[in-house]
Amino acid sequence: MNQVQNGFVKKLSPPQVLVIGFAATILAGAFLLSLPISTENGQPLPFIDALFTATSAVCLTGLVVVDTATTFSTFGEMVIMILFQVGGIGIMTFATFFALLVGKKIGIRERLILREAFNKIDMQGVVRLVLAVVIMTLVIEGVGFIILSLRFIPEWGWGKGLYYAMFHSVSAFNNAGFDLFGDYEKFSSLVRYVGDPVVNLTIGGLFTLGGLGFIVILELVEYRVTKRLSLHTKLVLTMTGILIFVGMVVILAIEWRNPATLGNLPWYDKLLASFFHSLTPRSAGFNTLSLADMYPATLFFTLFLMFVGASPSSTGGGIKTTTLATILLAVWGMIRGRENVVTFRRRIPYNQVYKALTVTVASITVVLIVTMLLTITENPNNILTAMFETVSAFGTCGLSMGLTSELSLEGKILITITMFAGRLGPLTIAMALARSLKQPPYRYPEERPLIG
Amino acid sequence: MNQVQNGFVKKLSPPQVLVIGFAATILAGAFLLSLPISTENGQPLPFIDALFTATSAVCLTGLVVVDTATTFSTFGEMVIMILFQVGGIGIMTFATFFALLVGKKIGIRERLILREAFNKIDMQGVVRLVLAVVIMTLVIEGVGFIILSLRFIPEWGWGKGLYYAMFHSVSAFNNAGFDLFGDYEKFSSLVRYVGDPVVNLTIGGLFTLGGLGFIVILELVEYRVTKRLSLHTKLVLTMTGILIFVGMVVILAIEWRNPATLGNLPWYDKLLASFFHSLTPRSAGFNTLSLADMYPATLFFTLFLMFVGASPSSTGGGIKTTTLATILLAVWGMIRGRENVVTFRRRIPYNQVYKALTVTVASITVVLIVTMLLTITENPNNILTAMFETVSAFGTCGLSMGLTSELSLEGKILITITMFAGRLGPLTIAMALARSLKQPPYRYPEERPLIG
Ligand SMILES: [K+]
Ligand SMILES: [K+]
Repeated sequence: MNQVQNGFVKKLSPPQVLVIGFAATILAGAFLLSLPISTENGQPLPFIDALFTATSAVCLTGLVVVDTATTFSTFGEMVIMILFQVGGIGIMTFATFFALLVGKKIGIRERLILREAFNKIDMQGVVRLVLAVVIMTLVIEGVGFIILSLRFIPEWGWGKGLYYAMFHSVSAFNNAGFDLFGDYEKFSSLVRYVGDPVVNLTIGGLFTLGGLGFIVILELVEYRVTKRLSLHTKLVLTMTGILIFVGMVVILAIEWRNPATLGNLPWYDKLLASFFHSLTPRSAGFNTLSLADMYPATLFFTLFLMFVGASPSSTGGGIKTTTLATILLAVWGMIRGRENVVTFRRRIPYNQVYKALTVTVASITVVLIVTMLLTITENPNNILTAMFETVSAFGTCGLSMGLTSELSLEGKILITITMFAGRLGPLTIAMALARSLKQPPYRYPEERPLIG
Repeated sequence: MNQVQNGFVKKLSPPQVLVIGFAATILAGAFLLSLPISTENGQPLPFIDALFTATSAVCLTGLVVVDTATTFSTFGEMVIMILFQVGGIGIMTFATFFALLVGKKIGIRERLILREAFNKIDMQGVVRLVLAVVIMTLVIEGVGFIILSLRFIPEWGWGKGLYYAMFHSVSAFNNAGFDLFGDYEKFSSLVRYVGDPVVNLTIGGLFTLGGLGFIVILELVEYRVTKRLSLHTKLVLTMTGILIFVGMVVILAIEWRNPATLGNLPWYDKLLASFFHSLTPRSAGFNTLSLADMYPATLFFTLFLMFVGASPSSTGGGIKTTTLATILLAVWGMIRGRENVVTFRRRIPYNQVYKALTVTVASITVVLIVTMLLTITENPNNILTAMFETVSAFGTCGLSMGLTSELSLEGKILITITMFAGRLGPLTIAMALARSLKQPPYRYPEERPLIG
């Protein structure tokens, strides 16, 4: 191996590799999308819009400044699809890797991969891991493609039906949130399918699986053999279940009589739509109801769900279900006077709890600052619009109350940065930028300030 | 001592004593304020309004559903003043005590008090502590009273001038936020004094001192002898200074040209008003500018300042300056890859950092839930109004965009509970309610979920 190259790679920390890799992919995508061949009308897109769209695709966000179907040519759409497919696989492998790298104990199988990948100093384990992610992705997207084909071909004919089935299956599994239904009504997402169980359950199933994360899916696939689930998987499944159930109840309770959302639907469509809208903030970004017409309380609750997002090493964003679960357990433990955070007969170590709290506080800080700046650059009537946009971008969710397509130049730049920060995590970016301090050879004496 | 009584008191945990003591004081106050003698027109106030006002006074919040000066008789005003004076001294002694009780190391003098108060099993130390708080309060309020008298007597005559000087000096030092300037314009607070340096600096100085907390003031007084400051005091002073400076810059930058706030003031009044408005969210609740007319970005930043609030064992509320400082240091340390939270050549122990993060997350949770409920009960045009009201109540700040006087019955109940929860802290209340778990005699094995 080249000595110089080796030295350079060795100098980059894992956070720096992540940041540079993502930035390079986004810039390449932005270049392609700004070519005349990428647009429907042959006019090159302004670079900021191309950059915004590429960032949104690579980061699996799904916020769009221009309507995808009516603005981009088939070439442009394929570029976008490839970007979010690369983004999805990249994030899953990177995140899984990164988790293994910092020495997380996940399970016997994963520990074997870890040992192979890093101790044997060959690339066998790495290849296997990437292969596993790719195969899993293709299998699940393939199943989604077949089901959606059965639904879309009768509606749109063979060519468009197959194309739509592919695009939306890939978009859904990767929690990308991009759709091609702008032909029907610009930026309308899945509103036309509000009462369609096949489309709702297939797309919902795809992005929910994608949001569980590679490790969880792998454990579930192997459960018939191993008969055991890790604490990580138990937390992911429990918390995801709770969020879906609570979300559905809250949406049903608040929106039941709202004529612009659930009000005029029959009860079974009310159930389907509220179920879908309790799934989609996990960070899918598809919607079957008009968000701008929801009551503020529902939107506010959706903010919370988007902020939490999906699970680690997945195609979803947010602070993650396990982070929320750990925090809730820590707060509950502190209230009950317990020393340790205990769940499922396991103890979560201090530094994990600490990390969960730090990630959350750092994320809240970013969201608050961006929201504040957005109220200055966009001057929206209702601050909720700006907050919703920010949390959606940061949680890579992609739901919007309608601000995205009206963003000013400053607003577009701000949201582009937010999508990037949200995808990689504010701590990862900060770690990539900051010079790591050496531990001092001595310890300072302890002193306790009063807290709270 | 009576054996049974002793047993009962022993059974109550410190959080339970706090909660019961405050609730009893509030109920007594609400009873007095609901009497016909308490109102200007002799009509008894609806009990919910009396309860709201008593809670606001005892909790040092300062949110008012009815204008204080025009609604209450002098008797009613005196009841309110006594309530916030008792609330202020009570909170300072309780909080100082509580801090000592859980074994915080604050300084040699405090440790002596601690030993005397709790190990010698007599009441000497307790009495001395309470006396110190009372004397300090009277001295500072006395100085404020004299200065304000010099300003108010020429304006209002002897009787009203002295009365106003007393009421507002006590209100300011206790960060109560109650004022009697509704005669001028209802709910107008200090708007009439926007350019008056004497009133601004005296009242601002009083509530800033009150917000620093008993321990810090004591250390500052004794500094000439001891020549040392504890880590606690250093953190409080540094963070308070940073918040004042940053707040002033942000307000000046955003509001400079706003004709409804700073725009039409000369530059020196711009400075004075922005200085005052960077002090008041610490949790004073007085205002010299109209909050409803500020730009959303300023209000949003004020939300943050109110949420942080003042310092521990003080008359102010919020999550506290030391909590914010600890969190910022922890996040910064994590970014730089440091194992410990180090500042001023001292190491803040893990469980303090942990507590800071838990307090913050629990507070954010309460604020989000209350805001969401408030959007349902009040249906405000702008969600910022509801959020502002909630954070103001929770941080016992008392600033309002105008929602308080328009609250529905449900809204009043909600804000009453929020003021109470904010004053005592959500963790204290939860601890008072929850049954403490015994540590199990065994430890569960450790397992790490993925975080973030
Ligand atoms: K998304
Ligand atoms: K106050």
